[in-house]
Amino acid sequence: MNYRLDIQYDGSRYGGWQRQKDTDNTIQGKIEDVLTKMLGTEVQIQGAGRTDAGVHAKGQVANFHADCEKSCEEICQYLNEYLPEDIEISKVSEAEERFHSRLNAKEKVYQYRIVSGIHKNVFERKYQCPLHETLDVNAMQEAAKYLEGTHDFKSFCSNKKMKKSSVRTIYSIEIVDLTQEIVITYTGNGFLYNMVRILTGTLIEVGRGRRKPEEMKGILEGCDRKEAGFTAPARGLTLLEVRY
Amino acid sequence: MNYRLDIQYDGSRYGGWQRQKDTDNTIQGKIEDVLTKMLGTEVQIQGAGRTDAGVHAKGQVANFHADCEKSCEEICQYLNEYLPEDIEISKVSEAEERFHSRLNAKEKVYQYRIVSGIHKNVFERKYQCPLHETLDVNAMQEAAKYLEGTHDFKSFCSNKKMKKSSVRTIYSIEIVDLTQEIVITYTGNGFLYNMVRILTGTLIEVGRGRRKPEEMKGILEGCDRKEAGFTAPARGLTLLEVRY
Repeated sequence: MNYRLDIQYDGSRYGGWQRQKDTDNTIQGKIEDVLTKMLGTEVQIQGAGRTDAGVHAKGQVANFHADCEKSCEEICQYLNEYLPEDIEISKVSEAEERFHSRLNAKEKVYQYRIVSGIHKNVFERKYQCPLHETLDVNAMQEAAKYLEGTHDFKSFCSNKKMKKSSVRTIYSIEIVDLTQEIVITYTGNGFLYNMVRILTGTLIEVGRGRRKPEEMKGILEGCDRKEAGFTAPARGLTLLEVRY
Repeated sequence: MNYRLDIQYDGSRYGGWQRQKDTDNTIQGKIEDVLTKMLGTEVQIQGAGRTDAGVHAKGQVANFHADCEKSCEEICQYLNEYLPEDIEISKVSEAEERFHSRLNAKEKVYQYRIVSGIHKNVFERKYQCPLHETLDVNAMQEAAKYLEGTHDFKSFCSNKKMKKSSVRTIYSIEIVDLTQEIVITYTGNGFLYNMVRILTGTLIEVGRGRRKPEEMKGILEGCDRKEAGFTAPARGLTLLEVRY
């Protein structure tokens, strides 16, 4: 059987999604450990998005193959009983045999939240970047228009050794100004390593007036990480949804 | 000068509002320490609601008397710079000389959030009570009607040695069923020690079918803590607003 997991997590305490050799303090590691305990045999799960350390998820998707006598509801209940309180399996369902959470993903939606007002919201503090600056949202929206579409996003990728194509399509970048908070929602067919955070850092620099919206064109053409802006902090970023 | 502070905090890490002799891990203690540092002389602040350990606030109010050359905005900025990230001063303003945050309070609004669905929301987990039970909300609403109004709430108070009057007026208890979550909002002229949590525990027992709504009358008349239900956990409770 091929099982699909829908997962949400507060990533604050973790070293990211992907299992690491030297530490199991990862979301993937925590889930695999509980599944391995449940099934009595080692299980590997495939996640749709390899979120960085400190990044959150409301709609992460993963899948794994296993023989299990439990129903989907029972697997879900077992996982939530043994997982820490900042990881929740929203749903377990049976997937088609060839379903692969990452390879079959058609669209991903990421959201970045920036505190623009003077005051922080103590209840949301772990899910927002505490910038506390007034940004020119119109300029940011104008810059975002240059980034939408199909481009080589090499300038917006931290992985220098990347050999595969760095061409991706961003369907939309929506920027909403909520007075105390600015929310940027990215929808695309895939995102490179650190790409959403570098896009956000670059847009923040536009919002500060340090870069002009039309500079985005040259940054994309440069295909060089040094052309783009800083990498915005992980805490403001949440993987909202993976669409198939 | 008499200064008014509007305060929000995530109470998870603290031993409650009120300063204690043996520990300064209280909200009042943290704020007084920063004010004392700022003014170079000891300051005592008066809080409107003495929230228990683990209880949160979105609209706590406090006041203090001091001679200070800084503007209200500067005091606010100073406090937020030195206070921990789970306490935020939303506003500092000048109050009338005789203003006392607790004695002048006319209404307080508390909110209690219960997770009724199977799944927790990892992002809200510290501000909700993880009950994960289906409750009969209609019965709870019926029971709440008996509790509204002016009554002796001695049965709903943990302080046995209380010598002062335990008569209070609850203007409204609103219970909203959000499918995954039940939210109870209490508005009253004042609340006794643990009163909102005991009211909530009692209403939960009604929702479970263990008590009938009409039993509320006898519980109030009994004037005995043993008559009422359990004390619901602190984490689900937030002081929303103090009205003057």
